[in-house]
Amino acid sequence: MPDSRERDVTRRGFLIKAGQGLVVTRALGALAPSASAQPVPDPPGKKAGWAIVGLGSLAINQILPAFAKCEKSRVVALVSGHPEKAKKLAARYGVDPKRIYDYQSYDSIKDNPEVDVIYIVLPNGMHAEYTVRGHQAGKHVLSEKPMANTPADCQAMIEAARKANRKLMVAYRCRYEPFNQEMIRMAREQELGPVKVILADHGFSIGDPTQWRLKKALAGGGSMMDIGIYSLQAARYVTGEEPVEINAMSYTTPGDERFKEVEEATNFQLRFPSGVLANCSSSYGYSGQNRYRVVTTKGWFELEPATGYSGLRMRVRRRGDAIEERTLPVRDHFALEMDHMSECVMDGKDPLTPGEEGLRDMRLIMAVYEAAQSGKTVKV
Amino acid sequence: MPDSRERDVTRRGFLIKAGQGLVVTRALGALAPSASAQPVPDPPGKKAGWAIVGLGSLAINQILPAFAKCEKSRVVALVSGHPEKAKKLAARYGVDPKRIYDYQSYDSIKDNPEVDVIYIVLPNGMHAEYTVRGHQAGKHVLSEKPMANTPADCQAMIEAARKANRKLMVAYRCRYEPFNQEMIRMAREQELGPVKVILADHGFSIGDPTQWRLKKALAGGGSMMDIGIYSLQAARYVTGEEPVEINAMSYTTPGDERFKEVEEATNFQLRFPSGVLANCSSSYGYSGQNRYRVVTTKGWFELEPATGYSGLRMRVRRRGDAIEERTLPVRDHFALEMDHMSECVMDGKDPLTPGEEGLRDMRLIMAVYEAAQSGKTVKV
Repeated sequence: MPDSRERDVTRRGFLIKAGQGLVVTRALGALAPSASAQPVPDPPGKKAGWAIVGLGSLAINQILPAFAKCEKSRVVALVSGHPEKAKKLAARYGVDPKRIYDYQSYDSIKDNPEVDVIYIVLPNGMHAEYTVRGHQAGKHVLSEKPMANTPADCQAMIEAARKANRKLMVAYRCRYEPFNQEMIRMAREQELGPVKVILADHGFSIGDPTQWRLKKALAGGGSMMDIGIYSLQAARYVTGEEPVEINAMSYTTPGDERFKEVEEATNFQLRFPSGVLANCSSSYGYSGQNRYRVVTTKGWFELEPATGYSGLRMRVRRRGDAIEERTLPVRDHFALEMDHMSECVMDGKDPLTPGEEGLRDMRLIMAVYEAAQSGKTVKV
Repeated sequence: MPDSRERDVTRRGFLIKAGQGLVVTRALGALAPSASAQPVPDPPGKKAGWAIVGLGSLAINQILPAFAKCEKSRVVALVSGHPEKAKKLAARYGVDPKRIYDYQSYDSIKDNPEVDVIYIVLPNGMHAEYTVRGHQAGKHVLSEKPMANTPADCQAMIEAARKANRKLMVAYRCRYEPFNQEMIRMAREQELGPVKVILADHGFSIGDPTQWRLKKALAGGGSMMDIGIYSLQAARYVTGEEPVEINAMSYTTPGDERFKEVEEATNFQLRFPSGVLANCSSSYGYSGQNRYRVVTTKGWFELEPATGYSGLRMRVRRRGDAIEERTLPVRDHFALEMDHMSECVMDGKDPLTPGEEGLRDMRLIMAVYEAAQSGKTVKV
């Protein structure tokens, strides 16, 4: 699963590259030795062209800056309802101002051959429409998570990709970064024995009550949709299994103006076919939780933070030993994710997290809500 | 809730005591200054006499050594089916060998006026019988947790205490030690705002398949009864509330010879009247888990280990701040617990964790099993 290119960033690989740089420099005889000792990365190959749709906080603070770390992706177009914001960002990131679209002109992106991939960074409730229109424009699409508001919308997106013969990927960022990949490896290879229980908690105290995440039509649901999905994903990708039973409990503080349309908290339990159980929590009402622990027969390993944009930490305990902190390369999650999509597009490969993966989560989220509402174990 | 005597062990209190010692020493003019600077504790007052019933690992390794740390409790009798073991322990702890009983002669303890309190350290399924016989012998009784195998047995124990006009306490050790007491204080005083979610995990990989904990008649149940009860207790004592709804899932590895009679793992969810939700796990199949975290609107605080006999660690995070480790006095949990019971007996006070508290847990454990078995939310 880890990008094999990243695996090469070892000390040995580093020294070999540095050595090659030195040979070239000596032949030229022009640079000072101190400068010549620096490794010089190869120039990038062809990069896929990306259009970013929706210039909110995630696009501004995470996605656009990440292109500087990409090997296979470059931003070539912006789609926004705010022309001034788009112009400023275009200037900062070297996007031709003629390649700025609004939501009316969006479909004309089909005439822009520079755009290979469209990244949908809109509120959840708009993912389906803009993904389908993107596919109809003949482009590949990466949609933010959760994939849409309903399984039916997810299916429409998958169908649009199929008809257009274009890729559809869901932005499950954590599948592309080293810490979560290491957790998956440890679980699957049973480094500390078979997995028994997964304990996952994700949430934060949400602020501004007017934001789209708190509007049912735009968000599809509350904490479960937005942040509980990380706990659900972790349980699924660590085990590599699909849950067969779900219990859940929701809670919303009466009178809290933030939660007029969507739920505050949803806790859920999963049973997997192998017997692994998961206890998961999600909330918009508690102070930041971002962790999961995998408990095995011989120890446990955990990430906390687990799924943030950066600063992830891994702790590992083998029974009887001290707790060990395991360090891994610090990488830009968004760059890894976008480069994976670019690679799929350029090499004709299927994404690790295609539309079908988003649909599976959406069906499970509906089952979680059903369990919470009915007070019964839902079999899926 | 914390013992007020313990609260006095501050630096200021220490210096005052040291100063008083110095005055006395100077008057005597006999000791070297270095020795005179040491604080001399007051001699203990009257101590209640204890009989320990059941000389297994807990009695040998924790309870008997703890008397050396007691201010109000001394061991004066032993009850065991193994006379040689009892003789060796009597010799080590200064118990008159004439005060060794077996399970037949147990009732004659009524004729021993030195014994005020009987501590039942037998397998769960024997708590009821030996508690009732203890009360019938006119003694006060401290029973290990879980209180018994069934709510009916708990009620019989409570009734026996009432009839005999003697105290009955359940050995919820964690209620008497500083770390868990501090967690309770922080929650109740809303140091980091109101509690929203409690996440509690307790369990270990159980060994010897022939041990009593794996026999239904002696243990009453599996991991939930023995170790899940710590998660249940934590959720209850942190909130100070009684749960109103319970979900649960159990799992037992097919063919595992340890789990022929009792369940391996039970995960459960609780809803409290204030809206607090709890996610709890218990297992005899996963590697040691011993922790709970209290998540509030403004941060979180946790113990890990949370309920072990020693070595507890507290971490506190206020939103936006670094994680803080909070240190507290290291105390012997069993000494604190036994001294509480002695104090209740000598001063005619009611224990903090009376039989009724054990009965509440037992009813809730039955509701957890019912929820797991029925696949429905159980309202309690």
